[in-house]
Amino acid sequence: MLYSKYFAPIQKENPKDASIVSHQLMLKCGLIRQTYSGIYIWLPLGLKVLDKISQIIKDEMNKSGAINVLMPTIQSAEIWQESGRYDDYGLEMLRIKDRHGKELLYGPTNEEQITQVVRDNVKSYKDFPMNLYQIQWKFRDEIRPRFGVMRGREFLMKDAYSFDMTFEGAVISYKKMFASYLKIFDTLGLKAIPMQAANGAIGGELSHEFMILANTGESEVFCDKSILDLSFNNKEINYDKDIEDIFNLYTSFYAATDEKHDVADAKYVANKDKVVSMRGIEVGHIFSFGDKYSKSMKLEILGADGKLINPQMGSYGIGVSRLVGGLIEASHDEKGIIWNKSVSPFLVMLSSLGTQENVVSACDNIYKILLNQGIEVLYNNKEDGAGSKLATADMLGFPYQINIGSKSLERRVMELKNRATGEVITIDINDTNKLITILKS
Amino acid sequence: MLYSKYFAPIQKENPKDASIVSHQLMLKCGLIRQTYSGIYIWLPLGLKVLDKISQIIKDEMNKSGAINVLMPTIQSAEIWQESGRYDDYGLEMLRIKDRHGKELLYGPTNEEQITQVVRDNVKSYKDFPMNLYQIQWKFRDEIRPRFGVMRGREFLMKDAYSFDMTFEGAVISYKKMFASYLKIFDTLGLKAIPMQAANGAIGGELSHEFMILANTGESEVFCDKSILDLSFNNKEINYDKDIEDIFNLYTSFYAATDEKHDVADAKYVANKDKVVSMRGIEVGHIFSFGDKYSKSMKLEILGADGKLINPQMGSYGIGVSRLVGGLIEASHDEKGIIWNKSVSPFLVMLSSLGTQENVVSACDNIYKILLNQGIEVLYNNKEDGAGSKLATADMLGFPYQINIGSKSLERRVMELKNRATGEVITIDINDTNKLITILKS
Repeated sequence: MLYSKYFAPIQKENPKDASIVSHQLMLKCGLIRQTYSGIYIWLPLGLKVLDKISQIIKDEMNKSGAINVLMPTIQSAEIWQESGRYDDYGLEMLRIKDRHGKELLYGPTNEEQITQVVRDNVKSYKDFPMNLYQIQWKFRDEIRPRFGVMRGREFLMKDAYSFDMTFEGAVISYKKMFASYLKIFDTLGLKAIPMQAANGAIGGELSHEFMILANTGESEVFCDKSILDLSFNNKEINYDKDIEDIFNLYTSFYAATDEKHDVADAKYVANKDKVVSMRGIEVGHIFSFGDKYSKSMKLEILGADGKLINPQMGSYGIGVSRLVGGLIEASHDEKGIIWNKSVSPFLVMLSSLGTQENVVSACDNIYKILLNQGIEVLYNNKEDGAGSKLATADMLGFPYQINIGSKSLERRVMELKNRATGEVITIDINDTNKLITILKS
Repeated sequence: MLYSKYFAPIQKENPKDASIVSHQLMLKCGLIRQTYSGIYIWLPLGLKVLDKISQIIKDEMNKSGAINVLMPTIQSAEIWQESGRYDDYGLEMLRIKDRHGKELLYGPTNEEQITQVVRDNVKSYKDFPMNLYQIQWKFRDEIRPRFGVMRGREFLMKDAYSFDMTFEGAVISYKKMFASYLKIFDTLGLKAIPMQAANGAIGGELSHEFMILANTGESEVFCDKSILDLSFNNKEINYDKDIEDIFNLYTSFYAATDEKHDVADAKYVANKDKVVSMRGIEVGHIFSFGDKYSKSMKLEILGADGKLINPQMGSYGIGVSRLVGGLIEASHDEKGIIWNKSVSPFLVMLSSLGTQENVVSACDNIYKILLNQGIEVLYNNKEDGAGSKLATADMLGFPYQINIGSKSLERRVMELKNRATGEVITIDINDTNKLITILKS
């Protein structure tokens, strides 16, 4: 992609009203723009990250056996009246009347909606266990939207809903999601710690929040330092075999959110000296809440014994749009973003440092070769000074930068910079094989 | 995917309230379910089609040079007050007040939203021409939602918006979209005819609707029979060279919607005998409308001559969710859907006809081989009679069916059925190479 033909408006000055670094950088790099309070358009660079995160989540959800559906954003108030949450939900729910005066709402979460669909379409225990997930926009009418996409009003969320005939089955479904979340955050290049959490309005007993540790985190969290040393190391999960071990390992350490922090907890007492207090950003939350919705909404399934029962349910969320901010909070420096390869909008930023004919033609040539190799490259071919181009490349933060100017061409080389390490190596201008090998490694 | 573990509820009886065949089949096959009037959940089979259509559209939009963004579904009323459409739009607009009493709306279309974003972020002619597109949910509060996803309230649309400094440039942008639409519909396996169309509320001069011909079409259309013989033949478009020729060829024939039908038109007069009247389903609509929005919303761009001008704009829509219905209207028989390969949820339906051990193990084996080959297969391993399974396979309508029962195994063969032609061939049960070769051809 040619940067000159792209729509990625740079904002040079530090954006006012953006108090945290991810919000600042998302505006400065042209990932998003606010269209109204707490509501954003995703510009091409931001959308690419959003799409890559979504794909990573989908791939792992599918591996775990969850099935992809897509619910509408607009729901009927009736199902929320059935569950009893319509009045409880308060002002955060965006309530709407249609032209016939019917009460609708923009879904802030979808327990009611999915329960309605399963109730109308599943009759027998043979269809369970079942876990249905979607990635869809939600709306919560925050009283004071802030921190950019970290606390916006319209936001993208992955939400999964599990249905089981027994409590034991529901626990297995819960542990599958627990493990899948560790794998997903690991693939994104994030260390997200599962912590005991309160269930809040959603109800239920078993609940973990997945927290990224960052100084700008909204909430205080407490955890045994040892859990920070655990590493998932990008290993594939066998969902039939590995679940118990993964769950047991990660829950063997004390880790709790502020609400659940309990100095009387046995794990806390045993390792008090190792427990530290830190700031965390919530990027995922999983719940098991039994028959709360299946009972109130009369979801009844015929069991093997011929009796009707209310299935055990759980719900499992990942804040997809919030994660874009979370990733930047967790990985940036004073120069800009440092993207992990798995989610970077492009793998490479190619910059022509100068407008001399040989510089432009060398860059054009490398650009074509990278495109032919299927490498995602943004080519900064704009009329701009070398210093400004290098600063832009650092700010945008793709894993690699290729810089070619008249000085490097005198030496018959291009410079390849690794954004994360800062390391710069020179490669013979004709040795594109070496370049490709490094980029694809 | 195992059909027994999938969420694709079959509805055996003909759905009441579904008056057209695509709506009936989408319900019967388990592609969608209505959650509220004119609002649908996309079940896994339907979502796969929706995703494949979206990907085909994205690929061609990108090739045409359009750039992918994602606007929010919720917009501020303010921008619609600026353009003057807020009051005009009437009851079809879903109007919302947030907790602070601010007027919002669920976007029925996005001319205002994109104009606001470009106004705030683009200052110079150097950034033009520019074409920004998205695939995003829209809402139109139809007074009487009907025909399933063909006239729903919440619907998925691809909408692109072009910005040019000159009228001539805007015409080129328009012709690029004209050509890209022909290519997209061709890839989907559809014959969609571009027809002169009225511009309606959106304003402007140059406008074509792309119509699928089907007996159930909502509107009467008129066209020269010769245009039906044109075939795009899946050829790649060179957007720098081919545009004029494609546009001139397709517009050389008389083709007009009811509103634009004109017996005084020269092309009509010249070929009156060849013009036929048919029913059409609108699946795309493109407009060029000059400075209607750039002027009213004060989008001003600095030209090369230093003067500020209001750019020439166009907008280009494809009804993505509507297309799922349109595809079925255009391709089905009395047994069910006949999917085109490019959009079929799965390439193959594998059915075990019988529960005998050798049948199950032969099917399990073929299933594994297909998965290893990356072939999308739905394996009907349910406990169900052979006749019912064959009927289900025909109804779901994937391009190929593999049927294995004890009778075919006695002959050491599997049966491979081509859904579109009805042709059945037998393949040696061990000759999976032959099977794979056919499936991948």
